[in-house]
Amino acid sequence: MEAAIGALSELGWAGATMTVIAERAGVSRGACQHHFPTRGDLVAAAVEYVGHQQMEELGRRAARLPADQRRTESILHMLAGFYTHPLFVAAVQLWVAASTDEELRSQLVPVETKVGREVHRLTVSLLGVDEREPGVRELVQATLDLVRGLGLANLLRDDSARRKKILHRWALTLEDALRPRSGRKAGD
Amino acid sequence: MEAAIGALSELGWAGATMTVIAERAGVSRGACQHHFPTRGDLVAAAVEYVGHQQMEELGRRAARLPADQRRTESILHMLAGFYTHPLFVAAVQLWVAASTDEELRSQLVPVETKVGREVHRLTVSLLGVDEREPGVRELVQATLDLVRGLGLANLLRDDSARRKKILHRWALTLEDALRPRSGRKAGD
Repeated sequence: MEAAIGALSELGWAGATMTVIAERAGVSRGACQHHFPTRGDLVAAAVEYVGHQQMEELGRRAARLPADQRRTESILHMLAGFYTHPLFVAAVQLWVAASTDEELRSQLVPVETKVGREVHRLTVSLLGVDEREPGVRELVQATLDLVRGLGLANLLRDDSARRKKILHRWALTLEDALRPRSGRKAGD
Repeated sequence: MEAAIGALSELGWAGATMTVIAERAGVSRGACQHHFPTRGDLVAAAVEYVGHQQMEELGRRAARLPADQRRTESILHMLAGFYTHPLFVAAVQLWVAASTDEELRSQLVPVETKVGREVHRLTVSLLGVDEREPGVRELVQATLDLVRGLGLANLLRDDSARRKKILHRWALTLEDALRPRSGRKAGD
């Protein structure tokens, strides 16, 4: 699984052939193909597996987060770490390949939906917000789309200095927008 | 130029060969290669050319925007339109290819920097905000990273319904965050 993710993030979809992945994993191509008939099967399984591992790691880190006022910013940095990890680079390689390959897309969409839902649920839980409040769900989604956008911006260069400033400002804005205030208008 | 973008967004980097692009453009491969020695040259020129055209189109649409309170949301929808256009799909194909190809990356980074800077400048101007105010620059950057993230989410499926709700909420939050308020703390 990790061999597949590594090959994909370093070599791209075109370079991460079944042969290359099997070699990196130290198994025969035949053994690999026995478990995963197509490269799409293997890679979708790898994304789900590593995504799940990442989620567990996020959960463990979350348990160690400070409970003070910098908590929102710490959560954002954790999420940004998730979306600048080689796993995300591998996932973007897959999304792009899938955008021109219907079979791969049909394998990938359910996996991505599942991982996306888990990250969303975890973020809601970490932020300690109530999605039944108007606008909360959309603000959490916007936050995740933002960190995904930041992951994309990191693809071609080290974008960490710019990202740090953006996340600092986003944390302040998000805290302000999520804070329940008596007499505050819902906004729409 | 448009043939290159079309081939790239529909076929991906692996499929958008010089031969395919020349054929789509109705010119010979030789003529194409005379102007652009490598596929990287051609595609970088195409991204810059079409990016510039898009920017002009954004400018024209901006001139017709309503000056009322829904203006922020209209601006966000315009930007989202920019990042769900086939040009963006082509650009993501390039970024992903460039992340594993140093030569392509060195061609692409200056072009992307230029297009990114133009979109940023246009957004500041449309929103009518002052970047010297603390936090304003980061909020504009966050907005652009958010719409890029939304563009990414649109790669595998039609995400327009979810996107619409997120942009509605972000418009309200952004207006609130950008509004100068007397006595308001800068936030950090």
